[in-house]
Amino acid sequence: MKVYMDYAATTPVDPRVFKAMKPYFSEKYGNSVSLHKEGREAKEALEQSRKTIADMINGKPKELVFMGSATESTNMALKGVAFANRKKGKHIVTSKIEHHCVLEPARWLEKQGFEVTRLPVDKFGLIDQTQLEEAIREDTILVSVMHANNEIGTIQDITKIGEICKEKGVYFHSDAAQSFGKVPIDTKKMNIDLLSISSHKMYGPKGVGALYIRKGTKIEPLLHGGGHESRKRSSTVNVAGAVGFAEAARIQKKEMTSDAEKQTTLRDKMIKELLKIDDSHLNGHPTKRLPNNASLWFAYIEGESLLLQLDMNGVSASTGSACSSDSLEASHVLLAVGLKPQEAHGSLRLSLGKYTTEEDIDYVLEVVPKSVKRLRQISPFRKGWKQ
Amino acid sequence: MKVYMDYAATTPVDPRVFKAMKPYFSEKYGNSVSLHKEGREAKEALEQSRKTIADMINGKPKELVFMGSATESTNMALKGVAFANRKKGKHIVTSKIEHHCVLEPARWLEKQGFEVTRLPVDKFGLIDQTQLEEAIREDTILVSVMHANNEIGTIQDITKIGEICKEKGVYFHSDAAQSFGKVPIDTKKMNIDLLSISSHKMYGPKGVGALYIRKGTKIEPLLHGGGHESRKRSSTVNVAGAVGFAEAARIQKKEMTSDAEKQTTLRDKMIKELLKIDDSHLNGHPTKRLPNNASLWFAYIEGESLLLQLDMNGVSASTGSACSSDSLEASHVLLAVGLKPQEAHGSLRLSLGKYTTEEDIDYVLEVVPKSVKRLRQISPFRKGWKQ
Repeated sequence: MKVYMDYAATTPVDPRVFKAMKPYFSEKYGNSVSLHKEGREAKEALEQSRKTIADMINGKPKELVFMGSATESTNMALKGVAFANRKKGKHIVTSKIEHHCVLEPARWLEKQGFEVTRLPVDKFGLIDQTQLEEAIREDTILVSVMHANNEIGTIQDITKIGEICKEKGVYFHSDAAQSFGKVPIDTKKMNIDLLSISSHKMYGPKGVGALYIRKGTKIEPLLHGGGHESRKRSSTVNVAGAVGFAEAARIQKKEMTSDAEKQTTLRDKMIKELLKIDDSHLNGHPTKRLPNNASLWFAYIEGESLLLQLDMNGVSASTGSACSSDSLEASHVLLAVGLKPQEAHGSLRLSLGKYTTEEDIDYVLEVVPKSVKRLRQISPFRKGWKQ
Repeated sequence: MKVYMDYAATTPVDPRVFKAMKPYFSEKYGNSVSLHKEGREAKEALEQSRKTIADMINGKPKELVFMGSATESTNMALKGVAFANRKKGKHIVTSKIEHHCVLEPARWLEKQGFEVTRLPVDKFGLIDQTQLEEAIREDTILVSVMHANNEIGTIQDITKIGEICKEKGVYFHSDAAQSFGKVPIDTKKMNIDLLSISSHKMYGPKGVGALYIRKGTKIEPLLHGGGHESRKRSSTVNVAGAVGFAEAARIQKKEMTSDAEKQTTLRDKMIKELLKIDDSHLNGHPTKRLPNNASLWFAYIEGESLLLQLDMNGVSASTGSACSSDSLEASHVLLAVGLKPQEAHGSLRLSLGKYTTEEDIDYVLEVVPKSVKRLRQISPFRKGWKQ
């Protein structure tokens, strides 16, 4: 049996999405800035796609800029706001559990003379609102806190964070790569100034993302050139990608609630059963979490070995984020929620999706306990394990 | 009749390319950094694609980094080299006829304290090698000169420029978005340190490009995050896009010569006939030009109006580059080769492609002279025209 349990890393393109994109490769192939028929045709499709996605987050089409990925969006949000507002201040606030695509641009900005405060989180992965308020200074220009964590699935109270930022007069960016299409997002109600979203995490194609930029936000482009996307992101626009992204958004708008219900039920059954394994623990918040995320850690074993065991048995999973899966360092997220390095190394992320079935879960529940048991029998870690 | 004569703006995806990409949307959808079966499958396809493209420019696979577009490549080349080498120097040399995706990053770098020299060109669009040599200073860190111009099609003597840069110990970047897949490129023989290439200009999909970075080149990433692409470009890689780009490259490697021969013949016939129109002139070099490029200017008329006339008659063309087609400024390229603003405004770019037929050309030769004549009859420019 083959069970894909890594939907948080990436998803297959929904066949309906593929169908929508298909004409934009070889038939309606125009460049969206060309003035002729092919160009206008591409532009119409692009603007319709922009509207679909903007509507879904309660933004205006003009506030949505298509990008090559959510990583490009977060890079533009951080660097673009930093460079455009450095006369106002040089201080940025973020959290310790952000994705690398926020932490690394922040680190790079430090090298350019900016200052970064990284807020700690509690054992569930939630930031403290008082700490956030205290961290915002006179010279703070941006707060960047992710909506839902990619490893442990914890959903922050974005509405509250947005309120605080609005009160303090500081731009608020949220990385919503994991949450967009899974839980509702309203940029107005949540006071979000900048929102990074991804297509391939929600059954759209890879190679396309978007950055919502609230009207009036002072920001510099990351890609300079021909002046596409209202001069905010130069590059020939990936029209097929935008159309696919929009179709994925349209589908998720309709199916988000039922998907979430179904996945939450399956996930909770899975978590409940997996926690019956001795010395197993749930990562993240018990309820404030993405409907498709299950993250656990098992004492005495090494996550990489568990992944290999699962893979040999046809189950595809992840230890933390896909992006750092070739790294040997313990996850910064798991360390931030209080795990010791050896505990963090024993973590497993099982992420569900649209196509996950009851049978898939049953199979996972057959394979995971067996694999954990087997690894513990041969584990060189057990002896030296210190808790 | 419908004739697309704007292949320099973008091309349809070759059906063979689409076929190669197709499985990577919904079937082989893995994230190339995931460790499981789906991830490995994606990684294999990605690495094979990298090898195909690297081979074509005589580079090593490790020297090729996939990007979201050629604009991202040129932005990384300029900004990445500038930031990584600012201790060595702050001076960059480029030309006046570069695409905006080189000129705008250069302008942005000036705001960050870098200095930029923009070399003039002769009436054909060629830079002067002595001027280049003289422009390179002690503190010069990068020379960026495009391979073939997107508007007038002129091909620079890249081998000679590469030699000069090598002698002077300065990095050489070339924007080859228009030339890759149309004329041979050899990064070793041409002493190219950085090369920006595009997929959608050569029958591959939009939303993917690549930057060749010679081993040992000091460069900073533009996108910071999860560390993909050997830490040079963070972002989940667009595997389908990379596969499509590679298939397009594979096809062009085989068909480049015959395509060029066919297109040159058709183009020369077209140019010859169009030059029979009174007061019509060829832009660019008569022979050192892209096989698919015809750029002309017609006195007494306005290019935009000509485009509309052609469009109404089913011919899709461009005045200059697609990227600036919504701008009202006269083309910086045409001004640089010595045209007056009103002359530059009367320009027309007809670019051929793989699917251009003799019938297409015959139709263009029927429509263009008629349209020029019609516009001249009603032209408000004729009266005030000063040459």
